[in-house]
Amino acid sequence: MLQITGSNLIAGAEGTSSDQTFSVHHRLTGEELPGLFWIATRDEVDAACMAAAEVGTIPAEALANLLDQIATNIEALGEELLERAHAETALPLARLTGERGRTCGQLRQFSALIHTKSHLDFRHDPADPARTPLPKPDLKRMHFPLGPVAVFGASNFPLAFSVAGGDTASALAAGSPVIVKAHPAHPGTSELVGRAITDAIQTLNLPAGLFSMVHGGAEVGQILVQHPAIRGVGFTGSARAGRALMDLAAARPTPIPVFAEMGSVNPVFLLRSALESRSEAIGTGLAASVTMGVGQFCTNPGVVVGIKSEGWSRFKSALVEALSSAAQGVMLTDGIADSFSQGCQALSALPGVEVLADHPGGKVFSTFADFPAEALHEVFGPSTLLIECDSEAELDAVAHRFTGELTASIHWEPGDETLTQSLAHILSLRVGRVIFNGFPTGVEVSPAMQHGGPYPASSDSRFTSVGTAGIQRWLRPVAFQDAPDFIAANLPG
Amino acid sequence: MLQITGSNLIAGAEGTSSDQTFSVHHRLTGEELPGLFWIATRDEVDAACMAAAEVGTIPAEALANLLDQIATNIEALGEELLERAHAETALPLARLTGERGRTCGQLRQFSALIHTKSHLDFRHDPADPARTPLPKPDLKRMHFPLGPVAVFGASNFPLAFSVAGGDTASALAAGSPVIVKAHPAHPGTSELVGRAITDAIQTLNLPAGLFSMVHGGAEVGQILVQHPAIRGVGFTGSARAGRALMDLAAARPTPIPVFAEMGSVNPVFLLRSALESRSEAIGTGLAASVTMGVGQFCTNPGVVVGIKSEGWSRFKSALVEALSSAAQGVMLTDGIADSFSQGCQALSALPGVEVLADHPGGKVFSTFADFPAEALHEVFGPSTLLIECDSEAELDAVAHRFTGELTASIHWEPGDETLTQSLAHILSLRVGRVIFNGFPTGVEVSPAMQHGGPYPASSDSRFTSVGTAGIQRWLRPVAFQDAPDFIAANLPG
Repeated sequence: MLQITGSNLIAGAEGTSSDQTFSVHHRLTGEELPGLFWIATRDEVDAACMAAAEVGTIPAEALANLLDQIATNIEALGEELLERAHAETALPLARLTGERGRTCGQLRQFSALIHTKSHLDFRHDPADPARTPLPKPDLKRMHFPLGPVAVFGASNFPLAFSVAGGDTASALAAGSPVIVKAHPAHPGTSELVGRAITDAIQTLNLPAGLFSMVHGGAEVGQILVQHPAIRGVGFTGSARAGRALMDLAAARPTPIPVFAEMGSVNPVFLLRSALESRSEAIGTGLAASVTMGVGQFCTNPGVVVGIKSEGWSRFKSALVEALSSAAQGVMLTDGIADSFSQGCQALSALPGVEVLADHPGGKVFSTFADFPAEALHEVFGPSTLLIECDSEAELDAVAHRFTGELTASIHWEPGDETLTQSLAHILSLRVGRVIFNGFPTGVEVSPAMQHGGPYPASSDSRFTSVGTAGIQRWLRPVAFQDAPDFIAANLPG
Repeated sequence: MLQITGSNLIAGAEGTSSDQTFSVHHRLTGEELPGLFWIATRDEVDAACMAAAEVGTIPAEALANLLDQIATNIEALGEELLERAHAETALPLARLTGERGRTCGQLRQFSALIHTKSHLDFRHDPADPARTPLPKPDLKRMHFPLGPVAVFGASNFPLAFSVAGGDTASALAAGSPVIVKAHPAHPGTSELVGRAITDAIQTLNLPAGLFSMVHGGAEVGQILVQHPAIRGVGFTGSARAGRALMDLAAARPTPIPVFAEMGSVNPVFLLRSALESRSEAIGTGLAASVTMGVGQFCTNPGVVVGIKSEGWSRFKSALVEALSSAAQGVMLTDGIADSFSQGCQALSALPGVEVLADHPGGKVFSTFADFPAEALHEVFGPSTLLIECDSEAELDAVAHRFTGELTASIHWEPGDETLTQSLAHILSLRVGRVIFNGFPTGVEVSPAMQHGGPYPASSDSRFTSVGTAGIQRWLRPVAFQDAPDFIAANLPG
């Protein structure tokens, strides 16, 4: 059996100097799980950051090998990794198996990407010594690593957005060292994956400072984000925690960029012809999307907008029917479960909001186009709010009320083209991804994915946290002017 | 003669509702110049921002035509534009002629760029309906305008970094509307150029909200940066003002990115063989770079580092000799002239810092490798600080003390390769552009230019404010998943 020591992983060394420890319990049985975890001390965080700052330039080939080796090592952990993750999160093994595939898949996608060197955005303006009035210099410009990055593990993706998740994979691909703050809800899973990374670094004889992992809560996170050696932050989680990190980073003597992905209500628009021809399929499809992962996805469809019609009524029935038979899931943490109850209570207490269905597996709320603004606050969990409009004008007005969302979806069929066109335009100004005849959950990891929208969905809509374009968060360009051959020959690109 | 009305330009309308006005004087003769300028009211700023927010998607071809038309209109202003700029800034007509060329040149470079559509970074992942366990969706991803941008005119580039300067050109190229706060030191020049832009918009029948220009000081700037419709900020100026804007933008309910280019001391390293073979040429070349534009460039070489030697002594003599005959220039504003005197005084008062030469045209200070940190504060004006090292180890240690600079330069000749290689590496971690055997002034406008370094040189080292890559500041990606043909056909790219 894999051993879990509870250590912080400080640039390849064990960090166990704290007098504060914590343990975790099996999320379903309540039994205490193996491992006593040391909360990182300020000195341990500092040692991790200083080791990261010492890491020099690493060739892309070596970084690609590292990413591949990490994927191999994670797979070699076998079922024990999945079982520990299941015990810590209550997520089903099938889901975790898929998530492991995604995690290793994205590590290998970044490996393949950096082999192409396209991420370096290499540019060359040749010299023109004869140009008047001034000769033109030779300029070569390419991307360098931003420097040490702090990554916050997410509660809802113990593998794909945690220790070796998208933020870590993209930062390492960029050549930026990573210090992960493990999410305290799955520290054992984090340690197993963290050791898969440190082992890979050791196997390939790369600098140990490339990766560290620390345990702890908000205080450890603050020490990390305020450390002078840290040059960027990757975060997936709540709007409140994300904004706190943004504020902290902006107030540093040397401000640093924060890429926070903070979730969203992901509105789904159902147009008339679509409802006429496939209201039942939309209802059951939506129910599946709402309940997937106990609704604990940043892409959970939290709001559905449609115009009253017979099709809309049939859709509602199908949705409620499907939810009535959905199994009640166990949420990731007690805190998330409490927040979900409170969020549902607050939503149902708003003027004009009614409870349409309250099943153990999922809840449906309903309101009208003149809903109060608070109704658009994200409720993290298996619920959705239906917004019933009387006309296309009302639906259009509702679309204008969204400010920053990860996604928006439009269900359309022939006859809906005009409204689809205008909605797509309105929504493209407000979201990162517009989906047609689909649901927002299930985020493809690929070069053309955009997972990040205007604030408050993300801290900076110019970047993505899913897909290979995510590497751009951790790179900065440097230009070399009239570089001699012995310099130019050693430049990336 | 061109008329200067003093109006704010609010989306094509005249803004003259303020009860606060100001005028400016000829910088050389002291005579009052034509034009009484209205400081923009909160309502006028609001009207400009709201009009900008109403601007829809504009095809790249129309934006390219606009940029070309603006360049044509600026050229059509003829000598009167240059004379007004000369009167307001004391910059010589020859320099302003060159700056006009650069301004129109970069407008046309951005026009050519957006014709290629490469700035859209179009990505397409085709669908694979047969994929298991889940079908793969079709994804198309491309860049959209970030939205309305606030641009702050710079004092030291009345044309190339002001109303129609690099920030405005790149933002308009991105399709993001622009609201310029004109620099109060050259409001007449600003109005002439601002009208060249509004005329071009009118001629091409584009939305008037694409461009506005307001007059005022820090208060108007704050109103602008805090306006909810503004999605990004472009700024060139002092570290203090830049940081204030960064803090203001980060504290908004919806934080927005600020691209602030705040200057730098641009260290120049002189290596042994280079000094042996061409110390006089380096001395006179450096003097020209230090005094260019009365030293009022963000790329002014404010620090020179070398190892004591006969060549270094000859270099010092040549530098001081060249500066002794440099003409005394008139600085852009009284404020800048005062800051320069105070900066020189503060520098010379530091322990270990000596005044080596104090000529009307330029000043040289001198210190040793153990200089106090304050010696690296930028002194904006025609001065430079020599740091004399005893050894390569000392020079290496000095290189490590820089934290964020726009540029660093290395003068080398055969025999200096090893030190050049290690210095280039150290400096590439600290600057945006490394220059070999050249001086930092004279920033080429081209695709491979990087003008932006780690903080405090710039607010975000991942972007450039000079060159065509600057357009990336004002773009955000949106992905379209399974878009039907009638949507896909109208997407950019």
